Amino acid sequence: MHTLTQFRLCPRSRSIRLALAELGLEATLADERPWEWRPEFLALNPAGELPVLELDGGPTLCGAYAISEYFAALPENTEAATPRAPLFVGSLDDQAEQRRLVDWFHGKLDREVTRELLIERVYGHLMQGQAPAPDPSALRAIRSNIRYHLAYVNHLAHDRRWLAGDERSFADLAAAGHLSTIDYLGEIPWDTYPAAKAWYMRMKSRPSFRTLLSDRMPGIAPAPVYADLDF
Amino acid sequence: MHTLTQFRLCPRSRSIRLALAELGLEATLADERPWEWRPEFLALNPAGELPVLELDGGPTLCGAYAISEYFAALPENTEAATPRAPLFVGSLDDQAEQRRLVDWFHGKLDREVTRELLIERVYGHLMQGQAPAPDPSALRAIRSNIRYHLAYVNHLAHDRRWLAGDERSFADLAAAGHLSTIDYLGEIPWDTYPAAKAWYMRMKSRPSFRTLLSDRMPGIAPAPVYADLDF
Repeated sequence: MHTLTQFRLCPRSRSIRLALAELGLEATLADERPWEWRPEFLALNPAGELPVLELDGGPTLCGAYAISEYFAALPENTEAATPRAPLFVGSLDDQAEQRRLVDWFHGKLDREVTRELLIERVYGHLMQGQAPAPDPSALRAIRSNIRYHLAYVNHLAHDRRWLAGDERSFADLAAAGHLSTIDYLGEIPWDTYPAAKAWYMRMKSRPSFRTLLSDRMPGIAPAPVYADLDF
Repeated sequence: MHTLTQFRLCPRSRSIRLALAELGLEATLADERPWEWRPEFLALNPAGELPVLELDGGPTLCGAYAISEYFAALPENTEAATPRAPLFVGSLDDQAEQRRLVDWFHGKLDREVTRELLIERVYGHLMQGQAPAPDPSALRAIRSNIRYHLAYVNHLAHDRRWLAGDERSFADLAAAGHLSTIDYLGEIPWDTYPAAKAWYMRMKSRPSFRTLLSDRMPGIAPAPVYADLDF
């Protein structure tokens, strides 16, 4: 059995959990609190970052980038892989658009929203064992950035069937990884962004999403509608 | 002719300039000041990030990730491409290691050093048109992070021929993109890290590095040894 070392609200871990499920691969989940810098974890990934996928009888893959591109290359290189839904699809131009958006979500959205939100609302809480007092001006900036990013997702979802085009791709999974974390924390005003909401509703209904929706971060309850398919 | 929109001290732009030179592709450089958010630039890349490569008669590729993976996939998909040195080489396991390190440099090193150093020492300077007064405690933190990252590069360069293994790959180019920017600003104590220095000396001697070494950021002079091959 493969092992995925992850943190339940880490958006990159979530994107890879979705990817594994879409690829029809099962993995045991190993929880890691990335701020603890455990020596055993640093031996696994010196960067101290999540997720890390240990393939049974195969290599250890560090980070969403190395993991997603490993599976993207597999079908062309081995006969063993029978992916149910490839992570990158279509022509090289199509795939460049999918990767542009993966970079948007795992890069820009992470930097401007998810990473900061986790620092303000989750890490401090879990480290101190009590409800944190988030910095109000930091939260205001994060919420303003959430509206900017939601407007962009709404624009993409309005013009296209899936975020990067006609086909579902890892861009949708990367976006869903982040938005599901932000949504868990009750920070998404879905009704203002109907096309983004309709896209997220479709994502949420996929079997690959089930384990994310049943996930609970001990000590931090999800927003009331987090697991509702009709929200 | 292809066009690469870039900023002269942007480490990701530099990694792609190195990659294009290693691939034997020429591109016209278009300078962009990313903090200005020009509407024409945002029309090219809504993320407002660099670099952006407009391929002559081909797609517009946004970001080092989409650009590098586009060229990584090209040889298998077209007959036109005759890359001189592929960006990712060897087995899937080898390539996963190369991508782990690209992620390290374009992700972790960027976040912990290069991005912050540019904010403290370059952007403020260029925006205000005068020498900035960097925050001393921010600079101290950045310099401490530089030592940590240099120690890691030194460890890799000591154990391996190139940073990711026996073969040169985009991991070396990503590292060189960042370290050349940090070195331009005179912030690298090379003599403390002899294996890293020997690796960087070999990188610097490559023809692909020449345009970077002759590059000057108007208003910001490079460190004295920046362009020396023997430093």
